[in-house]
Amino acid sequence: MTAMPELPGLRPHDDRLLPADPVVRDLARRLYQQVRDLPIISPHGHVPVEWLAGNIPFTDPTALLLSPDHYIFRLLHAGGVPLSRLGVGDQTLSEAESRTAWRTFCEHWALFRGTPSRFWMESVLSSIFGVTQRPSAQSADFIYDRVAERLTADEFRPRELFKSFGIDVLATTDDPCDDLAHHAALAADPSFDGRVVPTFRPDRYLEPGRPGFAHLMGRLAEASGEDTGDFRGYLRALAQRRRHFKEHGAVSADHSHADVVTLELAPSEAARIYAAALRGDTSTEESTALRRHMMLEMAQMSVDDGLVMTLHPGVHRNHHSPTLEEFGPDTGHDIPVAVEFTRSLQPLLDRFGTAPEFHLVLFTVDETVFSREIAPLAGFYPAVYAGVPWWFLDAPEAIRRYRGAVTETLGFYRTSGFIDDTRAFCSIPARHDMSRRLDSAYLAELVVQHRLDEDEAFETGTDLVTTIPRQVFKL
Amino acid sequence: MTAMPELPGLRPHDDRLLPADPVVRDLARRLYQQVRDLPIISPHGHVPVEWLAGNIPFTDPTALLLSPDHYIFRLLHAGGVPLSRLGVGDQTLSEAESRTAWRTFCEHWALFRGTPSRFWMESVLSSIFGVTQRPSAQSADFIYDRVAERLTADEFRPRELFKSFGIDVLATTDDPCDDLAHHAALAADPSFDGRVVPTFRPDRYLEPGRPGFAHLMGRLAEASGEDTGDFRGYLRALAQRRRHFKEHGAVSADHSHADVVTLELAPSEAARIYAAALRGDTSTEESTALRRHMMLEMAQMSVDDGLVMTLHPGVHRNHHSPTLEEFGPDTGHDIPVAVEFTRSLQPLLDRFGTAPEFHLVLFTVDETVFSREIAPLAGFYPAVYAGVPWWFLDAPEAIRRYRGAVTETLGFYRTSGFIDDTRAFCSIPARHDMSRRLDSAYLAELVVQHRLDEDEAFETGTDLVTTIPRQVFKL
Amino acid sequence: MTAMPELPGLRPHDDRLLPADPVVRDLARRLYQQVRDLPIISPHGHVPVEWLAGNIPFTDPTALLLSPDHYIFRLLHAGGVPLSRLGVGDQTLSEAESRTAWRTFCEHWALFRGTPSRFWMESVLSSIFGVTQRPSAQSADFIYDRVAERLTADEFRPRELFKSFGIDVLATTDDPCDDLAHHAALAADPSFDGRVVPTFRPDRYLEPGRPGFAHLMGRLAEASGEDTGDFRGYLRALAQRRRHFKEHGAVSADHSHADVVTLELAPSEAARIYAAALRGDTSTEESTALRRHMMLEMAQMSVDDGLVMTLHPGVHRNHHSPTLEEFGPDTGHDIPVAVEFTRSLQPLLDRFGTAPEFHLVLFTVDETVFSREIAPLAGFYPAVYAGVPWWFLDAPEAIRRYRGAVTETLGFYRTSGFIDDTRAFCSIPARHDMSRRLDSAYLAELVVQHRLDEDEAFETGTDLVTTIPRQVFKL
Repeated sequence: MTAMPELPGLRPHDDRLLPADPVVRDLARRLYQQVRDLPIISPHGHVPVEWLAGNIPFTDPTALLLSPDHYIFRLLHAGGVPLSRLGVGDQTLSEAESRTAWRTFCEHWALFRGTPSRFWMESVLSSIFGVTQRPSAQSADFIYDRVAERLTADEFRPRELFKSFGIDVLATTDDPCDDLAHHAALAADPSFDGRVVPTFRPDRYLEPGRPGFAHLMGRLAEASGEDTGDFRGYLRALAQRRRHFKEHGAVSADHSHADVVTLELAPSEAARIYAAALRGDTSTEESTALRRHMMLEMAQMSVDDGLVMTLHPGVHRNHHSPTLEEFGPDTGHDIPVAVEFTRSLQPLLDRFGTAPEFHLVLFTVDETVFSREIAPLAGFYPAVYAGVPWWFLDAPEAIRRYRGAVTETLGFYRTSGFIDDTRAFCSIPARHDMSRRLDSAYLAELVVQHRLDEDEAFETGTDLVTTIPRQVFKL
Repeated sequence: MTAMPELPGLRPHDDRLLPADPVVRDLARRLYQQVRDLPIISPHGHVPVEWLAGNIPFTDPTALLLSPDHYIFRLLHAGGVPLSRLGVGDQTLSEAESRTAWRTFCEHWALFRGTPSRFWMESVLSSIFGVTQRPSAQSADFIYDRVAERLTADEFRPRELFKSFGIDVLATTDDPCDDLAHHAALAADPSFDGRVVPTFRPDRYLEPGRPGFAHLMGRLAEASGEDTGDFRGYLRALAQRRRHFKEHGAVSADHSHADVVTLELAPSEAARIYAAALRGDTSTEESTALRRHMMLEMAQMSVDDGLVMTLHPGVHRNHHSPTLEEFGPDTGHDIPVAVEFTRSLQPLLDRFGTAPEFHLVLFTVDETVFSREIAPLAGFYPAVYAGVPWWFLDAPEAIRRYRGAVTETLGFYRTSGFIDDTRAFCSIPARHDMSRRLDSAYLAELVVQHRLDEDEAFETGTDLVTTIPRQVFKL
Repeated sequence: MTAMPELPGLRPHDDRLLPADPVVRDLARRLYQQVRDLPIISPHGHVPVEWLAGNIPFTDPTALLLSPDHYIFRLLHAGGVPLSRLGVGDQTLSEAESRTAWRTFCEHWALFRGTPSRFWMESVLSSIFGVTQRPSAQSADFIYDRVAERLTADEFRPRELFKSFGIDVLATTDDPCDDLAHHAALAADPSFDGRVVPTFRPDRYLEPGRPGFAHLMGRLAEASGEDTGDFRGYLRALAQRRRHFKEHGAVSADHSHADVVTLELAPSEAARIYAAALRGDTSTEESTALRRHMMLEMAQMSVDDGLVMTLHPGVHRNHHSPTLEEFGPDTGHDIPVAVEFTRSLQPLLDRFGTAPEFHLVLFTVDETVFSREIAPLAGFYPAVYAGVPWWFLDAPEAIRRYRGAVTETLGFYRTSGFIDDTRAFCSIPARHDMSRRLDSAYLAELVVQHRLDEDEAFETGTDLVTTIPRQVFKL
């Protein structure tokens, strides 16, 4: 480190994200200290279970920190860096290319000023890898070498990181036909005591209008042992896969379609459209109707089997088709659209809104629904919880806006607890840390404005990272 | 009080809701002190006039403070408490049940952390009833007894509370066919010098598609002495009832439909649809068109008779039909939807937007229209005023967002003054107190940022609770 | 000044708009001092080029400061002042009427409390004209005389003001058929070294459904020397005019339609609708479809000729038809509506979102799209930049909301730099000054919350007013 004394340092401050006012900051700091080291509960995310099952060492900084993180590479792309240079999609980079990609990232560090990626990456580099220099053209190779060297050590293998991160529960997201062998292996392995649970994510299997639906139904039949040749068999097959997931520890089923409209079809009509879909012979209206009907069936199954139902609507997937073609999905061009919950969910909530033990968690990328729809719904229906900020809104000011928008209608105990929803494994502690800092800041504000007593703030702060996520996700 | 020294206290702080920064807080405090004890003007609300006319003592804490307050019972319901245990709807609770309901509420006090109900209830319990303990399982009976005992005293009867609250004007909300006998009795009673005025609320009479419309028209004919057998008679009948209301002190007519779309039908078309509606023979499109046309007729009548027109759109009423069936309307499951004003009101404003003495006050549960539509409309049309935050938005941060969203486009003098819109009689002083604290805080912020001079802030602060509501509501 | 010692003063504070917290304010002040005197880059606005070309002295305070400023006169109109008394539209006021208009404005000064017009007008009166009294009935004539007297001096002529304002580049907005003779004259004049560039604004020429379209096509043919009798000639004519603009220094083409929907028509279909439009024989659907197709053609031309494409959608123009009839367009009753970008722009971005050197700047009057659509789009597409707050949102708190809404998704370097978009020439320095103060405040907040290092804040603050607008607008 004495080699480059002149470069700007990377020294994340202990008080980062805490409010400027000294009185509020002091209280926020005390609230934060109480929760900073509590175990991490991560009930929804996208870390590949293979990483933990195989415990294979990570290869290099780019493959670990850049290529899987669409928050990072989308902004580099906007700044003029082709995705092909960043190892996005299925591409594999040579060591030289990885190093170049890392340097490109470091050269563009200014692009990330004011973003949460900046906060997360700083935390990761500093806390996990002991980096002490700010990313820049000058420091790029030095940081690359530092991280790469650490990755060769045993304590930087996935399971060891999992443990050092203080993760108590980690949920992955999985295809309904997955045999969940990795989850089973992990659970059976006496040398690993972390809890890694799958999440049932059936989107593709619920969209009868998508190309290849009949093929998927074939896979579903194979996986479930049910005949998916008719609608009733289709429902049985889905129920079987949910049971399989539950047996492997799953606590929730996650759904992300263009909207959350629900509507009930007559059984004969549902069966008719399903049969047509198998033949690839449905209109857009018909397949949309069946998808919306299936939300009711999924809710019914959640009522029956107890899997928490989470809704993540409102994303226009794969906005830029040339990028989709070259790099595949999840490559930075999923763009939010406006969503609607009040009318859309009325049929579902009319039937299941007060069903015992039914939990429905609502997420959004359209923050206008926080105060207008999500908070009022979760402020009446025992089944409904306001999911905390998701994607594009999982950042300091957006999280503050969320608390400001929902708390006054539903307090703290109708919210879901933090969700990191990330593929960036190493950023998990930083993301939960950010959330804890921000909730501490919010609670401190309430106390200083005499909207809450101090003892209540301390209790609520702890509940937000312990009892609340456990209760909502039945953990 | 020495009996339970160990329980957490209830001590609302003098500075609550004021900003954290010491300089801003000091000025906010001074601004607040100037207005805190000024008389309350409440130009829109839902207190039953019978309470004041009869001056019947309140029976118990639950019937007074919980059962009529949907802000409270909806969140308890979300937290798992059945409405049937809270005296919601027409249900009457025994003394034991009331006490149990109160205890349930106190046990769930943590649910209300961060909500305005927490602030209001604290104020009510502390300021009106002298309660000094925070609601909890342990304090529940003690508080219940304290409030119940006070309610037996003469100074806690409705009229005496009205006086002690410092209410100058209170508007109720009334059915067009109401004879307003209670209002007349109150006005004629020399022992009561409060001003209690009715508000003309004709929603049901303007929705030709609702079941029972013909029956309502029969009632309207009876009340007005006009033949409602045809459209012209219908208009005459409505005009007569408005006159009746005006003669009993009404200053405004209030409208709350799904949207505020206005459109003009040819007279013959309006007459045709009306006739069909009497026969129960209209399509949804026809009855919606007539309802939208009637908004223009109502505006015309407001131009003619001077009643202020207030619009409260965008609520999906009775979202959960099982609750509606068991407990009736207004039981906590009215949920907001997105609203639109710019295009919807264009026909109305094209005709009446500059009509002399026409006042149109726009409220919303969809805060996205504050900056986008309401402020620009009220920033051009002399008739239009931006109604202050309503339902779900009548809370500290939402009110701050409102000021932040509208002030920069229309200042303070195109807003309506505070509206409590409440059925919770005892919360009226607390609600106005909250508003005064928040406006003082906002004005102090402007001064400290040198966006306003201090003398202007003091003048504006007073205007917001005196001249502005009087001018807007013609009081 | 000794004549009226009792009147309230006008003393804009050095720290106005800076945050209340002393630590944040101190840093904000230092950040602001670094940028306050840097040259002004104004890449989009509405100052008439004739003023500068002719350098004709302004006549009186009302004609200079009130009549051209719809921010001012719309709020006076809302407050009950008829537009006819304010010199709005083509009306010319006598000296006595100008003085009366000014007095009316000063009497209504309280209407502007909390608005940015208050800030701008204070700055203009104080910094440019040396006024030391707050506008009021008492000070009106005094201020009028002061400003009028200064306007007779040579240093208050348009070109001298331009220079004293520190304007480096000023873009005007111009009709495609304009010969740009004034721009040419200015550029050729050795006595004026300011850079004044035209902007290509073809809205009317791209709306085939508007009355008079065929006539416009005739003008376009004349101006371009191309035969606009068929669709291909129409495209050639537009391309020719763009070349003409570019030759006269234009850097951008600006588009403001009801929406930004883009769709591709088959060439034969576009040609068919165009031919029908020349005959005045298109349906609304057809002319809308052609307008939406033309957005793609405009984008293609921007890709070809390098003019930056800016989109300003979502305004319902001329909401009040009686005012339009009497006073013409741009008279205060253009009202925002909700807009949509994600789906609307997908066809355009699919084709051009990664085209080299294509710049597309997105503005909005609907702030809900900041975090939901604009930031995610500009956070992926190299072509897209988030335009800074526009109309109704060009005010302190709205600008703060903008930074809070977009920064976390795209940082600072995907935003456009400040746009004043004003017809109020004298307010240009005040508007840029406001923006610089607010960005300094925001950067200081980030530093104090340890989200940004101090050296980064200083660099970013400078970039926001220098390299960023130059890069985005190719200046």
